[in-house]
Amino acid sequence: MAFQGERGAYSEDAIRLKFGEVDVLPCPTISDVFKAVESGRAEYGVVPIENSLEGSVNETYDQLLETELRIRGEIKLRIRHCLIGNPGAELSDIRFVYSHPQALAQCRGSIERLGLKALAYYDTAGSVKMVKERGLMDSAAIASKKAAEIYGMKVLVEGIEDSETNYTRFLILHREDAPRSGRDKTSLIFSVRHVPGALYEALEVFAKRGINLTKIESRPVKKTPWEYNFYVDIEGHREDEEIREAIGELALKALFVKVLGSYERGD
Amino acid sequence: MAFQGERGAYSEDAIRLKFGEVDVLPCPTISDVFKAVESGRAEYGVVPIENSLEGSVNETYDQLLETELRIRGEIKLRIRHCLIGNPGAELSDIRFVYSHPQALAQCRGSIERLGLKALAYYDTAGSVKMVKERGLMDSAAIASKKAAEIYGMKVLVEGIEDSETNYTRFLILHREDAPRSGRDKTSLIFSVRHVPGALYEALEVFAKRGINLTKIESRPVKKTPWEYNFYVDIEGHREDEEIREAIGELALKALFVKVLGSYERGD
Repeated sequence: MAFQGERGAYSEDAIRLKFGEVDVLPCPTISDVFKAVESGRAEYGVVPIENSLEGSVNETYDQLLETELRIRGEIKLRIRHCLIGNPGAELSDIRFVYSHPQALAQCRGSIERLGLKALAYYDTAGSVKMVKERGLMDSAAIASKKAAEIYGMKVLVEGIEDSETNYTRFLILHREDAPRSGRDKTSLIFSVRHVPGALYEALEVFAKRGINLTKIESRPVKKTPWEYNFYVDIEGHREDEEIREAIGELALKALFVKVLGSYERGD
Repeated sequence: MAFQGERGAYSEDAIRLKFGEVDVLPCPTISDVFKAVESGRAEYGVVPIENSLEGSVNETYDQLLETELRIRGEIKLRIRHCLIGNPGAELSDIRFVYSHPQALAQCRGSIERLGLKALAYYDTAGSVKMVKERGLMDSAAIASKKAAEIYGMKVLVEGIEDSETNYTRFLILHREDAPRSGRDKTSLIFSVRHVPGALYEALEVFAKRGINLTKIESRPVKKTPWEYNFYVDIEGHREDEEIREAIGELALKALFVKVLGSYERGD
């Protein structure tokens, strides 16, 4: 199972929560996770799609547009961030804090209160490894308690996130999506012409059938500034009759529709 | 006029483009820009809201929910990134490149072609200042040409971004919003109950009046995982009769509505 980041990343926690002790393949970037599954080097990939405080993970959304992989499932993980330093460091020594920009954003208030300077790093667990390897005594990293254990580092503050309600939702990627489970979601991407009411007309295909929309996200069309693709999650399976009808009708109204997969909702 | 970043940041370029030679107040974070205008230390603030390749700037969206400031205008700036080194450095000396993760992402192809290693830094202009202050001869920064001038540094490559269509849209913040200009936009935030068709019903207030939606963005409600506030930009001024009627009707359907301001569209 491929994931982005170093050993001890939250994505690895998500894999352990759902699948227990399986073989894992750490990858430098989210794009590398998609490539690992596409090429068959990994059977599955697990990538973050959304955090309950910071919102969507843009790189995952953008990769979903390009890939031929399917969404096979989702995992929701409670995130508890720790401020982690070298074994000899005290909180009063720390002036800089390294982590992934999303983790820094989730701890923005605490970082300001502690008077620390936030420095972006490509990965949470990777920032722990870097602070260790460089022996930085004025710097700490934000990552999971598990990451502190893996690298033999010291937890200076446990639960440094600004909000208790910090969850990350991960997608499970595979070459094929899932059969009906009875409690399914379907994810798809579409775009509409740039005229008044076009998005409203598109959403009508779900509203008139009483299909619940659990998420809508817009992402820029890279070649055309200020135009957008819409990503929606709806309740139901692609083989349900009303979902098939709704998607069929949407395909006639939209400029394009891409179904990403149907899968069991996470708890 | 307050902006986020060091002198030479793209936000300062946006200020110069719109207002010319005015006094500026550099601020460490986007939240500090809002505070500077709220407290009266600055008359106006200029903050990035959206990039045409990378999408929305989450911190700005989240601050808009909390602030009592109004959106007074917008500025669209073409982003041209430069690779910037110390005056004695040559392109063939450079092995490492520092910049804000968004800027590095926008130059990913060029960085790979040049065989450089990308290192994340908190700010574009700040990375130029750091390469100068540390006297690094094997490292360069990615920032604006203006940043190179301000810090007396050398432009090694001009236009290093991968795509020609790289624009950032900035908002102008002020304690009061603007009178009608004849080519206005209105920005607002609302939320709806979590039932099928609720977003569709809300958008009906605009669609049935032929009001064009130029942007819709969803941001998580931080206290309640997997619920969202919607941010929309519509064409028209809050004092136009049809816009007033639409917002009045939305206020009856939605859980809350917050009008952020009406302002002239940027070019």
